[in-house]
Amino acid sequence: MSNDSTGPRLRPLEWDDGTLRILDQTRLPGEERWLSVREHAQVRDAISQLAVRGAPLIGIAAAYGLALAARSGDDLERAAAELTAARPTAVNLAWAVSRILTLPGRSVDAVLAEALRIHDEQIAADERIGAHGADLLPRRGVVLTHCNTGTLATGGIGTALGIIKTAHRRGAQIEVLVDETRPLLQGARLTAWELDREHIPYRIIIDGAAAGLMARGGVDAVITGADRVAANGDTANKVGTYPLALAAAAHGVPFHVAAPESTIDAATPDGARIIIEERGEDEVLAFSGHATAPAAARALNPAFDVTPAALITAIVTERGVHRPPYVFAQRPVAVAP
Amino acid sequence: MSNDSTGPRLRPLEWDDGTLRILDQTRLPGEERWLSVREHAQVRDAISQLAVRGAPLIGIAAAYGLALAARSGDDLERAAAELTAARPTAVNLAWAVSRILTLPGRSVDAVLAEALRIHDEQIAADERIGAHGADLLPRRGVVLTHCNTGTLATGGIGTALGIIKTAHRRGAQIEVLVDETRPLLQGARLTAWELDREHIPYRIIIDGAAAGLMARGGVDAVITGADRVAANGDTANKVGTYPLALAAAAHGVPFHVAAPESTIDAATPDGARIIIEERGEDEVLAFSGHATAPAAARALNPAFDVTPAALITAIVTERGVHRPPYVFAQRPVAVAP
Repeated sequence: MSNDSTGPRLRPLEWDDGTLRILDQTRLPGEERWLSVREHAQVRDAISQLAVRGAPLIGIAAAYGLALAARSGDDLERAAAELTAARPTAVNLAWAVSRILTLPGRSVDAVLAEALRIHDEQIAADERIGAHGADLLPRRGVVLTHCNTGTLATGGIGTALGIIKTAHRRGAQIEVLVDETRPLLQGARLTAWELDREHIPYRIIIDGAAAGLMARGGVDAVITGADRVAANGDTANKVGTYPLALAAAAHGVPFHVAAPESTIDAATPDGARIIIEERGEDEVLAFSGHATAPAAARALNPAFDVTPAALITAIVTERGVHRPPYVFAQRPVAVAP
Repeated sequence: MSNDSTGPRLRPLEWDDGTLRILDQTRLPGEERWLSVREHAQVRDAISQLAVRGAPLIGIAAAYGLALAARSGDDLERAAAELTAARPTAVNLAWAVSRILTLPGRSVDAVLAEALRIHDEQIAADERIGAHGADLLPRRGVVLTHCNTGTLATGGIGTALGIIKTAHRRGAQIEVLVDETRPLLQGARLTAWELDREHIPYRIIIDGAAAGLMARGGVDAVITGADRVAANGDTANKVGTYPLALAAAAHGVPFHVAAPESTIDAATPDGARIIIEERGEDEVLAFSGHATAPAAARALNPAFDVTPAALITAIVTERGVHRPPYVFAQRPVAVAP
């Protein structure tokens, strides 16, 4: 595999001779458990259960899922539909699947080669996102982030977290405030785990604490990832992102978004058209199998929210730093040569 | 006791012939465990560990704590200082203690009588808050609340939750969206438990979901309690309240605060002077004894935030509905006849 040379040591997805190895992110940070899967339906389940998560990484996982489907002789269109339906909000899933389906011939080898290429490209894109975005962060200060946008979300150094890592490697004195990111605690569990590995100082806060800390001058910049960016720059991201953007705007704190170009959905004109995934009530009502609410309680569990473009200071992709007004035009899906 | 006739059946604090019985709110909703305490130091511990919580209720508990101290012949000034130090943000604690300390003579009987009077007055104040505030809520709609401001927070019907209960009893068709209220889940654990008992429909959401739901038109009003209201109306309340107020303002949703007059601290000119309690990191880093973050992780855990008066549509007390601009004047502490 060609991405051995540029990738980070941590690999949340590995293709190994007909088997896809998936680091089960639901078990982190307590346990590093790997799933070995050989069928696309198992990839779909890993995506819907969040064993693999992060908009770019689920795109890569879906591409490998189609490589497994091709090897098994499964119908690729049907496998693609199943994989895409696993999570509706992140556009990377549909984008990666579309890249595979538009391959001429769709031979087993061609599908696998395209999946590996998507994986490699993301790793390279992360490096460029990090390089473009690092100067947006303070040379010395506190940067707040939400959810997990690191290696565990992309396979590379990450998007928003990749920018933080790049700034840190360049000598910036950054403390990260990590939103724990309820209900599934991707911040407390995953981002903290990555920051530990990188020796970047951080503290975890509850999601609701960010606004008050901004009011007290405790935050110099906010940077998050994205699951879908509409043509006008409206951005869907993990639920809890929009209130951060509102608080940042109220206190003059820059609010940046980082994502690969594959997260931009120029076919969707604005955020109002983005479908917001509703997930199971149990994610809110229980923690580690322990009920947090009365037995009869019901919950409402939207997994994402939409931040209007007007609240976003910059959108960083591998092509550079986009500034408002955002106008993302439709481009043809890249086709392998 | 005179409050038997007007109080609700649920009693989170009971004075029983020299013993203070405290419903341990840290065990709810799973277990209804009662603590029986006979020393003011135990009351202080119950307050600091949140076995008893809610700004009005900790004031009442502190008053009973001084009654215990008086019975034991302890130095009242010293006991008062210990109780007041247990939690710095809620002004009701200092207010109740001050009422006791300014009693002429401070006899054992007089201290107990004043504690019982503070308790009774809160129950009556809640009824008036509910009556004044009920018309602020929609006759039919969705009302979002944060933390717990019900019987478990005041001993009466509650403040913000008391208004919701009153509106419901008057026939309003209200669904309550209950912020789970991290880190200690007073919404998911306590408010949901009270709403179950009242047969008021509700759904629990993560705190970060409120803004996105407001953007989608899913919230008709927000109502919360308060731990300290400054002279200009700036209001300290459970962390996570301020981002709700920002989101409500962004979407034209009324944002109301309900509290007894004892929560108004006219001696504090504005919110910048309110001391924000910082609580232990373990509240953020573990849940039910189960770590949610890597072992080396640190946390930052402010227990409150401050909502500027400009974001508050109305402040409801037992005296009526205050509207901006808020100007709360200092009044002498009430002294028992």
